[in-house]
Amino acid sequence: MRVLILGGDGYLGWPTAMHFAASGHQVLVADNYLRRKIAAETESQALIEGENLASRCAVFKDIHEKEIAYQECDLADYDNMLALVKGFAPELIIHYAEQPSAPYSMKDFRSAHLTLNNNLNVTFNLIWAVIEVDTNIHIVKLGTMGEYGTPNIDIEEGWLDVDYKGRKQKFLYPRQAGSLYHTTKVLDTDLLWFYVRTYNLKVTDLMQGPVYGLSTKQSDASDDLLPNFHYDDIFGTVINRFVIQAIAGVPLTVYGKGGQTRGYLNIKDTMQCVYLAAKNIPEQGELRILNQITETFTVNELAELVSRVGNKLDLSVTIDHIVNPRKEAEEHYYNPTYSGLQELGLQPTLLTDEVLEGIFETVAPYAAKISKDKIMPRVQWS
Amino acid sequence: MRVLILGGDGYLGWPTAMHFAASGHQVLVADNYLRRKIAAETESQALIEGENLASRCAVFKDIHEKEIAYQECDLADYDNMLALVKGFAPELIIHYAEQPSAPYSMKDFRSAHLTLNNNLNVTFNLIWAVIEVDTNIHIVKLGTMGEYGTPNIDIEEGWLDVDYKGRKQKFLYPRQAGSLYHTTKVLDTDLLWFYVRTYNLKVTDLMQGPVYGLSTKQSDASDDLLPNFHYDDIFGTVINRFVIQAIAGVPLTVYGKGGQTRGYLNIKDTMQCVYLAAKNIPEQGELRILNQITETFTVNELAELVSRVGNKLDLSVTIDHIVNPRKEAEEHYYNPTYSGLQELGLQPTLLTDEVLEGIFETVAPYAAKISKDKIMPRVQWS
Repeated sequence: MRVLILGGDGYLGWPTAMHFAASGHQVLVADNYLRRKIAAETESQALIEGENLASRCAVFKDIHEKEIAYQECDLADYDNMLALVKGFAPELIIHYAEQPSAPYSMKDFRSAHLTLNNNLNVTFNLIWAVIEVDTNIHIVKLGTMGEYGTPNIDIEEGWLDVDYKGRKQKFLYPRQAGSLYHTTKVLDTDLLWFYVRTYNLKVTDLMQGPVYGLSTKQSDASDDLLPNFHYDDIFGTVINRFVIQAIAGVPLTVYGKGGQTRGYLNIKDTMQCVYLAAKNIPEQGELRILNQITETFTVNELAELVSRVGNKLDLSVTIDHIVNPRKEAEEHYYNPTYSGLQELGLQPTLLTDEVLEGIFETVAPYAAKISKDKIMPRVQWS
Repeated sequence: MRVLILGGDGYLGWPTAMHFAASGHQVLVADNYLRRKIAAETESQALIEGENLASRCAVFKDIHEKEIAYQECDLADYDNMLALVKGFAPELIIHYAEQPSAPYSMKDFRSAHLTLNNNLNVTFNLIWAVIEVDTNIHIVKLGTMGEYGTPNIDIEEGWLDVDYKGRKQKFLYPRQAGSLYHTTKVLDTDLLWFYVRTYNLKVTDLMQGPVYGLSTKQSDASDDLLPNFHYDDIFGTVINRFVIQAIAGVPLTVYGKGGQTRGYLNIKDTMQCVYLAAKNIPEQGELRILNQITETFTVNELAELVSRVGNKLDLSVTIDHIVNPRKEAEEHYYNPTYSGLQELGLQPTLLTDEVLEGIFETVAPYAAKISKDKIMPRVQWS
C-alpha cells in the first residue's frame, strides 16, 4: 500500500512511518519541522531529538533494509499538498501534521494564530487534495480525547444518540475542549464531517489520549531511530515529564488537586491502533471515529505510580501540588468508551511497573541534558 | 454608546449602522468591500447597490442629521482589527464581517479557502482584540440558524440539556450545517465558546434565519440609503429571489421537492433583534445564544405566497421544481424554539401579503436591470 504520512518528523509520525515501512508498505513522509522551530523559539528543545529525516531515513534503511521517502514542505500551502497527493498517489494518508502543544496555543496571539491557521489549513488542504485527486483515498486523522472535554455523562466513540422529548437524533458527540490546540481539533472534526457527508470521503478520526514511552519494534534497534522525547512544559506530556522530574531529582509537579482524569496510551499501541485503522477502511461517506486509549488515570495516580517505580530504582521521588496554570476541572466524572479498537484487534500494552521502568532506562542516559528550568509551567490559561 | 460595526457595508450591516446612529449612538463601521469584489468576480452584482460608505454616510448625515464614521480595512488582518478596537474603544462590537454566500463557499477550492480563512480569522482577531483591549466589550456576533441543520429533534436556543444513562449534561447544541459557509459559522461558535469560558468574555451569538426585505425606518427616507439587494444564485436569498423571478416573468425556481423548512425574518426585525441584544448585556463569561427568526415556511409555501401576491399585482407567476443543486433533506422535521428575543421585547413583523407587496413595490423600479441568467444555480454541491 502507498502510505503518505503528514507530520512524519513527529513523536508519533516517525515511529508510524517506520512501522508501515517495516510492514512492507511504500511510505512517503512530509514535514516542515514546525515543532522543532517552535521548540527552539520557546527554548523547549527535546531531551531526545533525532537527526533530520534525510539522516534518519538512511539509518532506518541500513538497519531495517526498507526505504522511507521524505519531503520537507509546508502542508498549510495548498500547492504543496496537492502536488504531494497527486505525485505520490497514496491509498492511505495519515495526518499528524498539526501544531500539537496546548500551552503553546495559549501563549499569546501569535502562537494562537499560528495554531489555528496551521492546523485548520493543513486539514482543509488535505480534504481538498483528496477531493481533487481521488475520493477513494482513506484519510486517517489524529484527533484527541481532549475534544470531548470532561462532560458529566459517558463519553461515547464519536457519536451520541440523543433521545429528546420523545424523538431521536444521532449527533456528532458534542465537543468542548480545554485549550485552543484541542479546540482546533474540534474544528477539524467539524470540517471533516461536513466534507465527508458532502463529498463521500472515507475518513477515520482517532481520538487519542496522551501517549507515553519511546519503545517500538523499530526504534528499539538504535537510539538514532528513537522518536523525539519532550519533558518541558510546552511539548512534554504528563507521564514523560514525571519520569524526567524523578530522574532530575525535582518534585513531580501535579497541577492543582490532581483529580484530572484522562485516557492514556503506550506508543506501541499507537502503532497498533493506526495500523488497525488503516486495515479496516470505512465506507464512502463514513466518518468512523475511534477512541484511542487503553486505560484511564488521574494525575495523582500517575504521580504515585512514577514515584513508586522511581523509588524502586533508588531515586528519591517527591510530589508537589502546584497552582494549576490551566483552566480545567480538577475533580470530575470521566467515563469514556474505548472498545472500538479492541474489537478491531488491539492488544493493549498497559502501564505496568515494568513498562514504566523501561522508559526510565531508555531516558536515563540523557539525564545530564535535562534543564530543570524548562519543566515548570511558563504559560497561564488567562 | 460607542458601537463598532464590522461588515458595515453589507445587507444588514449598513441598516444596522443607520439604526444605531439614528438612535443616538456613536457609530463606526468597517468593511473591505469583500462582498462587492466577490459579486463582481462571479458576475453576481446586486440589483440595488448603494454607493461606497463615504458617499452613503454623507447622504445619511444630510437626511438624518447624524454621523456614521467609516473605515475601509481588512479585518482578517489582526493589526487592522487591533488598531480599530484600540482607537475607537467601543462598548459594543457587532460582527457581520463574513463571506456570507453558501454557494460561493461551495464553488471550488479557492472560494472555500477564502471563506474558511476570512470568516475564522475575522472572528479570531475580534476575540483577541477584545482580550487585549478590554474584556468588558460586548460582542454581538451574527451566527445562523443553518448551523443547526435539520435535526430530527427540536432545535433549542443554542444549548441542549442531555439526559443520558441517568446522568445530565448541558451541551452547546450539536451543530451540523449544510454548506461550508454555514460550517464556518459552526466553527466560529466553537471558537467563541472556548474563549468566552476561558477569558470571561461577554458574547451574544444570534442564530439568524434568511432575511427578506429592504425597508427600515432609515432606508425608507431615500433610495440612496437602501441596503444592497441580491437576487442571484450566489448572494440572493430565497424570498428576495422569488420576488425578482415574479417581476422578471420567469418561473420561481424551487430546489427539489420544496419541503425544506427554515425560519425567516423581516429586515426590520433584524434591526429590533440586534438592538435588543445590545441593550441586554450578558454576564462576563456568558455566551448567550438567541434564535433570530419570527416564523417558519417551507420553500413551497414561500413560492405559493410570492405567486399569490404577484398574481394580485397582475404578474403571471409560475413555479418550477428544478434539480436541487444542494445536498439537503427536502422533507424533514423542523421545530425550532425562538422565544428568547420575544421575551426581550421583539415585536415580530410577519410576512403578510402587504409586507410582500411592499418589497415588490420597492424593487419594481429596478426591473429593467434584472439579468435572468444570474438566477439559475451555477454551483453544485458535489
